[in-house]
Amino acid sequence: MDRAVLLLQCPDRKGIVARVSNYVLGCDGNIISSDQHSTDPEGGQFFMRVEFSFDEGRVPREHISSGFAPLASALNADYAFHFASRRMKMGILVSKYDHCLFEILYRHRNGELQVEIPRVVSNHPDLRELVESYGIPFAHVPVSSQNRRDAERKILDVFGEDTDFLVLARYMQILTPEFFDDYPKDIINIHHSFLPSFKGANPYRQAYDRGVKIIGATAHYVTPELDEGPIIEQIVDRVSHRDDPEDLKRKGRNLEKMALVNAIHAHIEHRVIRYKNKTVVFGG
Amino acid sequence: MDRAVLLLQCPDRKGIVARVSNYVLGCDGNIISSDQHSTDPEGGQFFMRVEFSFDEGRVPREHISSGFAPLASALNADYAFHFASRRMKMGILVSKYDHCLFEILYRHRNGELQVEIPRVVSNHPDLRELVESYGIPFAHVPVSSQNRRDAERKILDVFGEDTDFLVLARYMQILTPEFFDDYPKDIINIHHSFLPSFKGANPYRQAYDRGVKIIGATAHYVTPELDEGPIIEQIVDRVSHRDDPEDLKRKGRNLEKMALVNAIHAHIEHRVIRYKNKTVVFGG
Amino acid sequence: MDRAVLLLQCPDRKGIVARVSNYVLGCDGNIISSDQHSTDPEGGQFFMRVEFSFDEGRVPREHISSGFAPLASALNADYAFHFASRRMKMGILVSKYDHCLFEILYRHRNGELQVEIPRVVSNHPDLRELVESYGIPFAHVPVSSQNRRDAERKILDVFGEDTDFLVLARYMQILTPEFFDDYPKDIINIHHSFLPSFKGANPYRQAYDRGVKIIGATAHYVTPELDEGPIIEQIVDRVSHRDDPEDLKRKGRNLEKMALVNAIHAHIEHRVIRYKNKTVVFGG
Amino acid sequence: MDRAVLLLQCPDRKGIVARVSNYVLGCDGNIISSDQHSTDPEGGQFFMRVEFSFDEGRVPREHISSGFAPLASALNADYAFHFASRRMKMGILVSKYDHCLFEILYRHRNGELQVEIPRVVSNHPDLRELVESYGIPFAHVPVSSQNRRDAERKILDVFGEDTDFLVLARYMQILTPEFFDDYPKDIINIHHSFLPSFKGANPYRQAYDRGVKIIGATAHYVTPELDEGPIIEQIVDRVSHRDDPEDLKRKGRNLEKMALVNAIHAHIEHRVIRYKNKTVVFGG
Repeated sequence: MDRAVLLLQCPDRKGIVARVSNYVLGCDGNIISSDQHSTDPEGGQFFMRVEFSFDEGRVPREHISSGFAPLASALNADYAFHFASRRMKMGILVSKYDHCLFEILYRHRNGELQVEIPRVVSNHPDLRELVESYGIPFAHVPVSSQNRRDAERKILDVFGEDTDFLVLARYMQILTPEFFDDYPKDIINIHHSFLPSFKGANPYRQAYDRGVKIIGATAHYVTPELDEGPIIEQIVDRVSHRDDPEDLKRKGRNLEKMALVNAIHAHIEHRVIRYKNKTVVFGG
Repeated sequence: MDRAVLLLQCPDRKGIVARVSNYVLGCDGNIISSDQHSTDPEGGQFFMRVEFSFDEGRVPREHISSGFAPLASALNADYAFHFASRRMKMGILVSKYDHCLFEILYRHRNGELQVEIPRVVSNHPDLRELVESYGIPFAHVPVSSQNRRDAERKILDVFGEDTDFLVLARYMQILTPEFFDDYPKDIINIHHSFLPSFKGANPYRQAYDRGVKIIGATAHYVTPELDEGPIIEQIVDRVSHRDDPEDLKRKGRNLEKMALVNAIHAHIEHRVIRYKNKTVVFGG
Repeated sequence: MDRAVLLLQCPDRKGIVARVSNYVLGCDGNIISSDQHSTDPEGGQFFMRVEFSFDEGRVPREHISSGFAPLASALNADYAFHFASRRMKMGILVSKYDHCLFEILYRHRNGELQVEIPRVVSNHPDLRELVESYGIPFAHVPVSSQNRRDAERKILDVFGEDTDFLVLARYMQILTPEFFDDYPKDIINIHHSFLPSFKGANPYRQAYDRGVKIIGATAHYVTPELDEGPIIEQIVDRVSHRDDPEDLKRKGRNLEKMALVNAIHAHIEHRVIRYKNKTVVFGG
Repeated sequence: MDRAVLLLQCPDRKGIVARVSNYVLGCDGNIISSDQHSTDPEGGQFFMRVEFSFDEGRVPREHISSGFAPLASALNADYAFHFASRRMKMGILVSKYDHCLFEILYRHRNGELQVEIPRVVSNHPDLRELVESYGIPFAHVPVSSQNRRDAERKILDVFGEDTDFLVLARYMQILTPEFFDDYPKDIINIHHSFLPSFKGANPYRQAYDRGVKIIGATAHYVTPELDEGPIIEQIVDRVSHRDDPEDLKRKGRNLEKMALVNAIHAHIEHRVIRYKNKTVVFGG
């Protein structure tokens, strides 16, 4: 038995659930969970996630995908099938801060993050030992304002075809617009503030100066517009006048790693659908 | 156009979603949201909530309900259809504390709680003026240990057939087992602790004496076993050594009214399915 | 016996706590709680709140205040004494939304907000009945872009000398800079977003459009710079793709009333000290 | 310059703050923060934490402690001075679960936990490599029901005099009453439930069976009465019908490590005072 997840979005209309679930039944699939969302029941956009088990000995994976094409055309749908038997491959970019990387590696090792990590790339050599101690290849690709585009090409060379998506685990370099052309897949970033508050540099100092009573961290898909991509997860914590900027950083590190891990978790379970500048995140 | 919600539970098996959504399509219904849950995809209990719009001029409500019977039999399902055009009727029992009642009446008046409140009954006369100022009939039914059963019968007489469910909004009397025989519909209670901690009397004092750092409130369906019924909603708040028992009560009142209102909200939107001693609460 | 609260701020230096507590002891006062904060122990700003009981028959209130002047001069301190025997007077400005007003009136009546409410003023007549049902005088002062300054003067006339601070309980008019000259006391506002995100109009729509996963409300002191004043309290709640703008408003109303009531609570217990654009809020 | 923290508790009476702050001033100390709490201003128990900097070249540490004795006698106070120049020594006991240990070691290495870890002891050999990779000595002391007392003595032998307190980071053995006689210092445990709910074994299964909507973790001082010791910190998270017992464990691991780290943080900053079966935890 294998498991498949179908993610689908299309214009809303009558009968979508019935037609999709009939298709699954036609594949002799057993629906394990089914979520849907509509921006507006009368004429909006429709989103659906269906997870089902099936016997890959009787219905090959390729047939499940290809057989869906006629229905997808009829519904004018974007869709993708993901199979539990094939783990996603997650490339990680990191700089010097290790708290997010650490949490990811730990959760990966103890089985909470069911994903492959083919490689970690950093613009600094500092975290090589940590990464390699987990048996994961590490590559150091220095970046400077002079060599930015070269470095980005080198990074993608190093990852090769070996990733389904990238995670920026406190990667302190801004990606050029060309990078997004070269790598059209999903990229998840952790921003160390409660977006849209405190975009840009040094958000904890900004939060301290503004005197907020709650700080946050935001995991989002990266787009060429800095800190403007679709939000996947946000987590917050209470602060007070007692907390100086260093305290905010310390509390914030905890929020950052939690938000990023939750976002990765949702992404690799195929629970996230992007739509315009927003996300639909189905329950975990 | 009307809207219907189908709540259904049955043993899990292949094809339920397809068959139910085909039924809705057969009624020319447009599924607005569909949630499901299975305790165990291989042979557990299956729960489903389907909300759909339909044209009651073409497909009468009665036909929607009655036409489902054969499929329900085939699935061995418990089910109920609820129609948005028919608001639920909620009877309220209360004693002297008014914070929960107040919140309910306020939310009802401003349109957040789409429910009818045919009557409020209390074992004390104190809240008559408040209730009547909202244009809702009030009845005072004194209860003592001597007349408990008589009072309970009188309460049900006063409500008549006019309620779909009851809410105990800090009603300080314990219901007899016979009451549940006389009133087999749902009864929602608010308990002023984070159950199963601090059952019984004076939970804030118990919490204070134990020195907990978090207190809570629990809204649950009432069963003859005191404080043991299926939990619908729990809310918590942080406390510290600074909080004396009075502070806990004050913070707790806020939790109580929020938890109770959330539970009522879920119940009247038909998002709750009871199963054994637990609940499935679909997203709001 | 009476109770006094001393709020004090001054440049940090050695011995402040000793000298202040000696002063209280000299008044035969018994310190009930004492909080302090320093922005930087080596040469920053020092903040202190001391609450103590004393026998007003032996040491008159006036003496307690006046006798402190020499020490305050020596410490170069801003300070104020507040006495529990004199309740603060809170003027309320409101427009049409009633959820914050309602919560304030309810908490006031049940004794949680130990404050006097001499009057509620609104630029609409709608809430007169509600306010008067609580036995509180109501005044309707229409405001238009033509008569803004006249209306503001009339508002202050209506309140007279009878307020220690004002609360804007979803008052939908922007105050002119002149208003702050005419009324130099504290003004507390509730902004319906997690500031500094979503300043200005229609923050829930802004939040919906940005696709945030958490919304908030912010209670702050008003300054002539809109939505930039010192933050007293912030509260947040989780939202998802299921929540449309109306849902955000509904959830937000709850946050607004909680944040505002908490801020009022802290203010009337003299637990808040303003400093530059921030607040020190001592524990409740 | 050194820093001292004075923790003190005594019967409440007039003038304690003044006398203690005068003592600090007499030592030429500069109070950095001062917190106090009274269970009842008229005749209860008084708790105080004073942190101050002083010049150890002019006033030796020993004198600060010894010079306080007369005042402590006069106040009938329990007290202790702690000096920042001397880090606390924390012994760790662990079994096989590594999530709490991991978080502690990581926070220790990055400087968030300012404590010495002289040794980790486990009743299993599994975590030796992890511990030693952090440069910390590891000892394996097998425990069985036959050798329990011998093992406990051996554990204390291994730690020697080298600990100020112990942390049970998911140590799965129950300590005998004699252990508390042999080791009268503080022992901090993490219990994987929201105490007092779900004491004893398998709390996540208990929580699942009860159908709670919120789970928690509790860090507390250990006493001979299992799961009854003074609570230091509790953290909670929302769960739903979607979460099976394995999900609860996964979410719970996160709560456990956060609650335990927070409790250790408060303990090593000398912010916790035990009193009867409760704690006073001053702000961080």
